[in-house]
Amino acid sequence: MAVRVSIIGASGYGGGELARLLLGHPEVVLAHLTAESKAGEPMADLYPNLRAFTAALTESTDVERIARDSDVVFFALPNGNAMDLVPSLVPHTRVIDLGPDFRFSDPLIYEQWYKVSHRSPDLLEHAAYGLTEYRRAEIRRADIVGNPGCYPTAALLAMLPFVQGGFVRPGGIVVDAKSGVSGAGRGAALATHFSELNENVKPYNVAVHRHAPEIEQELAVHAGTAAAVTFVPHLIPMTRGILATAYLPLGKPLTTAAATALLQETYAGELFVRVLADALPQTKATYGSNFCDVAVRVDERNGVVIAMAALDNLVKGASGQAVQNMNVMLGFPEDLALRQPGLYP
Amino acid sequence: MAVRVSIIGASGYGGGELARLLLGHPEVVLAHLTAESKAGEPMADLYPNLRAFTAALTESTDVERIARDSDVVFFALPNGNAMDLVPSLVPHTRVIDLGPDFRFSDPLIYEQWYKVSHRSPDLLEHAAYGLTEYRRAEIRRADIVGNPGCYPTAALLAMLPFVQGGFVRPGGIVVDAKSGVSGAGRGAALATHFSELNENVKPYNVAVHRHAPEIEQELAVHAGTAAAVTFVPHLIPMTRGILATAYLPLGKPLTTAAATALLQETYAGELFVRVLADALPQTKATYGSNFCDVAVRVDERNGVVIAMAALDNLVKGASGQAVQNMNVMLGFPEDLALRQPGLYP
Amino acid sequence: MAVRVSIIGASGYGGGELARLLLGHPEVVLAHLTAESKAGEPMADLYPNLRAFTAALTESTDVERIARDSDVVFFALPNGNAMDLVPSLVPHTRVIDLGPDFRFSDPLIYEQWYKVSHRSPDLLEHAAYGLTEYRRAEIRRADIVGNPGCYPTAALLAMLPFVQGGFVRPGGIVVDAKSGVSGAGRGAALATHFSELNENVKPYNVAVHRHAPEIEQELAVHAGTAAAVTFVPHLIPMTRGILATAYLPLGKPLTTAAATALLQETYAGELFVRVLADALPQTKATYGSNFCDVAVRVDERNGVVIAMAALDNLVKGASGQAVQNMNVMLGFPEDLALRQPGLYP
Amino acid sequence: MAVRVSIIGASGYGGGELARLLLGHPEVVLAHLTAESKAGEPMADLYPNLRAFTAALTESTDVERIARDSDVVFFALPNGNAMDLVPSLVPHTRVIDLGPDFRFSDPLIYEQWYKVSHRSPDLLEHAAYGLTEYRRAEIRRADIVGNPGCYPTAALLAMLPFVQGGFVRPGGIVVDAKSGVSGAGRGAALATHFSELNENVKPYNVAVHRHAPEIEQELAVHAGTAAAVTFVPHLIPMTRGILATAYLPLGKPLTTAAATALLQETYAGELFVRVLADALPQTKATYGSNFCDVAVRVDERNGVVIAMAALDNLVKGASGQAVQNMNVMLGFPEDLALRQPGLYP
Repeated sequence: MAVRVSIIGASGYGGGELARLLLGHPEVVLAHLTAESKAGEPMADLYPNLRAFTAALTESTDVERIARDSDVVFFALPNGNAMDLVPSLVPHTRVIDLGPDFRFSDPLIYEQWYKVSHRSPDLLEHAAYGLTEYRRAEIRRADIVGNPGCYPTAALLAMLPFVQGGFVRPGGIVVDAKSGVSGAGRGAALATHFSELNENVKPYNVAVHRHAPEIEQELAVHAGTAAAVTFVPHLIPMTRGILATAYLPLGKPLTTAAATALLQETYAGELFVRVLADALPQTKATYGSNFCDVAVRVDERNGVVIAMAALDNLVKGASGQAVQNMNVMLGFPEDLALRQPGLYP
Repeated sequence: MAVRVSIIGASGYGGGELARLLLGHPEVVLAHLTAESKAGEPMADLYPNLRAFTAALTESTDVERIARDSDVVFFALPNGNAMDLVPSLVPHTRVIDLGPDFRFSDPLIYEQWYKVSHRSPDLLEHAAYGLTEYRRAEIRRADIVGNPGCYPTAALLAMLPFVQGGFVRPGGIVVDAKSGVSGAGRGAALATHFSELNENVKPYNVAVHRHAPEIEQELAVHAGTAAAVTFVPHLIPMTRGILATAYLPLGKPLTTAAATALLQETYAGELFVRVLADALPQTKATYGSNFCDVAVRVDERNGVVIAMAALDNLVKGASGQAVQNMNVMLGFPEDLALRQPGLYP
Repeated sequence: MAVRVSIIGASGYGGGELARLLLGHPEVVLAHLTAESKAGEPMADLYPNLRAFTAALTESTDVERIARDSDVVFFALPNGNAMDLVPSLVPHTRVIDLGPDFRFSDPLIYEQWYKVSHRSPDLLEHAAYGLTEYRRAEIRRADIVGNPGCYPTAALLAMLPFVQGGFVRPGGIVVDAKSGVSGAGRGAALATHFSELNENVKPYNVAVHRHAPEIEQELAVHAGTAAAVTFVPHLIPMTRGILATAYLPLGKPLTTAAATALLQETYAGELFVRVLADALPQTKATYGSNFCDVAVRVDERNGVVIAMAALDNLVKGASGQAVQNMNVMLGFPEDLALRQPGLYP
Repeated sequence: MAVRVSIIGASGYGGGELARLLLGHPEVVLAHLTAESKAGEPMADLYPNLRAFTAALTESTDVERIARDSDVVFFALPNGNAMDLVPSLVPHTRVIDLGPDFRFSDPLIYEQWYKVSHRSPDLLEHAAYGLTEYRRAEIRRADIVGNPGCYPTAALLAMLPFVQGGFVRPGGIVVDAKSGVSGAGRGAALATHFSELNENVKPYNVAVHRHAPEIEQELAVHAGTAAAVTFVPHLIPMTRGILATAYLPLGKPLTTAAATALLQETYAGELFVRVLADALPQTKATYGSNFCDVAVRVDERNGVVIAMAALDNLVKGASGQAVQNMNVMLGFPEDLALRQPGLYP
């Protein structure tokens, strides 16, 4: 029997991409698609790529109906929404939140960076951080998955093998990331106005971006010690894609060849993480797909590991990884509905 | 038993896109991928989106082996190649040529526009023009399909209903088309150098583009009378997508509503042609997919039908339509391996 | 003594570009820069390219002060604004309106296309249509210049020589135009959101765009007879630039060589219109400059003149031409502050 | 009497940009423009923005004539060219080399990174490193200026105040840079093919780029001690612009406010370096201009200074700075021909 899935926040890019992927999932039927300000519009008018694939109308959010009609609920909304609604849902459904409300095990970290109290702190222990390749067991049994941010997904997949392996000194880690504009969402603003961004590159939220503590939480989990990260994201003139370049001070000697071998071992059984030895990651190789391409170079002159990852921020960086997590939670093959190559060029 | 398929010219964009689509085709196995100057390279190095999908190496073209090992052979090469090799293949395999060698029923037209003699004119009668929606019966039984050019596919899907319906005066038809740069192929040249094309738009081959006679041939077939077309393509700063805007002088009265209804009737049973009534076509809605979106507006002030179509030049405008034609030829469901929505945004 | 100039609507792209050009004008001082919603902000915060060039603050609009302190006032606002304020200004200052309020000699045309009554119809006889190359004498003595729309500037500079020369049949003219996104202004909207427009092309306002009657007015003036135009603009993924492709049915024989010679004669003395014989126009050649590049090809098979023009929509298509008109009005060399090449690449 | 200037390598982007700037220089006449493979072509055909500005033809390089006819010679060629020709020129002319041959005081560094012997090592003592704001006195009296690379210009203008001020620990400096594609030159290649780069971002020459030793040389000069730099450039889908993000480990406490004040002091008298306090650099603010915008943020959590700079790689990063250096060498006002704002948007 098909799994009934609802998307809360279907009009944004995360929601649109969930719909695209789930409409091709053989074990799923879409139950409710909510979109407050666009309620009542055909989903295929909001996402014209979906014409001929769905006649569904968006609705306003009726939590009771959604709880009753759904086996899995995806949240694709900014922070603050899921933590209010999830308590009414979890008795009945499982939840995957693409927002940050359930990413932190410590509510104080959340409150410090998001500047609001966490309104469901007691649910955090039922939540798993959804970096699939590193948290599969917890995800499988979790009621709630806090799906990782786009930047942390890229940065962590590149960095964790070296941090886990004990090669990295805990201080002085730098993550410099470059993102396409779709990561900023679908809301119109001067900052995402075409003419302002095209032929332009700029840093933003320098060392104060909310994805920093998420990266730090996972580094600490896997390194066994706290590690501060200087994280600077940049907006570049493209729609999809993130490239993260992480600079890790070496704590013990490592060559590029050994570092590459470590990546290859770590991800040997992983379909969605592709390790490049002779090439460097580029976002176009992952365009529209759930793949993350990683590579590493060691700057031996300066004792720095340069770990790089490329992915599609809307797929592996958001909705694709969310579907991957759903597959894990429900015991489906992990690549169901996700095993397509990206578009090149 | 799986159908054995070879691609001649696998390193170009048409070949790469064929590989992407065929690797997802449940009834197909890839036999040979040829790429003269890149022979011996892993296909996944040439097309990094295909990493984890194929370990195939490209080869140089050995016609005999290809003939022996293939049920279907795709040509994805410039004009002049297929007509030399197809005679050795057709006794053994069926052929779909993404180039122009088998698009024209009259070799003189070919010779006039391509400035070379046709070296297999006797095979033309075995060839069908592969505009799937209009030539299905012939394609099914053809040994050779001349897959349409990207511009003609867009222009014809927009225009033919009005020409067939007798609404259009035969003289004075204008087709103004805008194409992404991937249509120019993968060969590096100053004219397709990033810095020369970005933030730039320009016409090229004004009224002398080789896709004009192809449009005219099909208009004549479906109108029952010769019709000259003034065709002007433009290069715009994007990778994928064609938008064709056709201006057809009205021969008898027509309203936008009636024109839209005519489109809807014509394409009622067609999965891959989506008729828009209230919206206008945009290439992004078709990005990476085999769909062609069409719409029409009548300028009653001037007696002009404005028929518009958007598609992905590498999919419905080339490799997708080629796979669609293969499905027709082999009796598979026509949408096999093609029923995915595009990426938006 | 310096000419005192004010800009009403300085925060939009037209206003920002006026400021950029006028800050380099040796005979001008800026008096007031108005920007209602941004009043009080440094102009160099709104336009960071102007840092180190001006410390001016934007203000809200005080018509009396502006009238007292200005010799020339530019309006860079949507339709409906200038016609309310100009009556208070013209006794004291000369006015150049980048909006449409003073472009039409017949207020009924304005009302039909802009769906509002013209509230200063009596001033229209004091206004000149500011297509500099064709209306220099009237511009010189006008109190008010209705600066042409970006599309009409391109289309008319390409077409008028053939219309004036009597080569064109009055019916069946088609203008297909492609514009960068800055033409849509600086207001944030989904339709100009980066991720929606990048890798996308779409038509809009098909055959109902308000620049059509402006083109028709000038064709009628220069042809001596009414001529309807089917005008379809398209949005393409770049910031600056318009390419207009005009299709004119020939009324009498003409070759490409003769058509090119006619362009060369017509624009022999014009600095800002460059006639290309062997090349085709591309917007990049005009990027950031006041030049318009034109070329022509005759499709003799179909009896169609294809007249093409490329320009920067914010310069020759708006603010540059406005400064050119100011130079004409004040008796300055016409190229003052405008004689710079564009950027390439 | 006008200064006679020649450009060796006029067909590349550096040469084209030099021509654009020098054609607007009131004290300069162009003597020779060389372009081996394009010799004999009108410069305005190679650079269509220059139509109406010059009728000059490109020539092949005749060193004797150039020496005789020129007061200043610009080289805009890859490494290895200038060091062969400059010995014949310097007795007669002054030289500004946009390539790397005269950037290094130590020929061994050059040889180590460029893998060729330096063929004019004795001339290096006559050469000044042309980072204008830091080397004005030497530039004024130099026969030869080694104009800085585009990345070093951005990185050094951002970093030097903190290095000079003694705030930075010498180890562990990271420079992560993002460049538009014009920095890769005008030569057509798959790596700069539009369809491969658009909607794509990728690192290249990771920790082995030749601009690293140039940055290190200047850090050492101004810090008084050797400092290794981990330098990673990235190619992003735009034509012009570089953003450099430098991560400097703090050696002593510093706040963002104090760091910004230090930038402001350092660049108080500099027209072309604009210090941003409340905003962050973005390349668009410098587009087509000779400005470099810098800003700083201190990540006090991790003890890292984040120094950022944006500039146009073809202007302040190459040809603009070269003209600025020429102005210094010849005693002209430093901003002659360079005092224009960039284009925004």
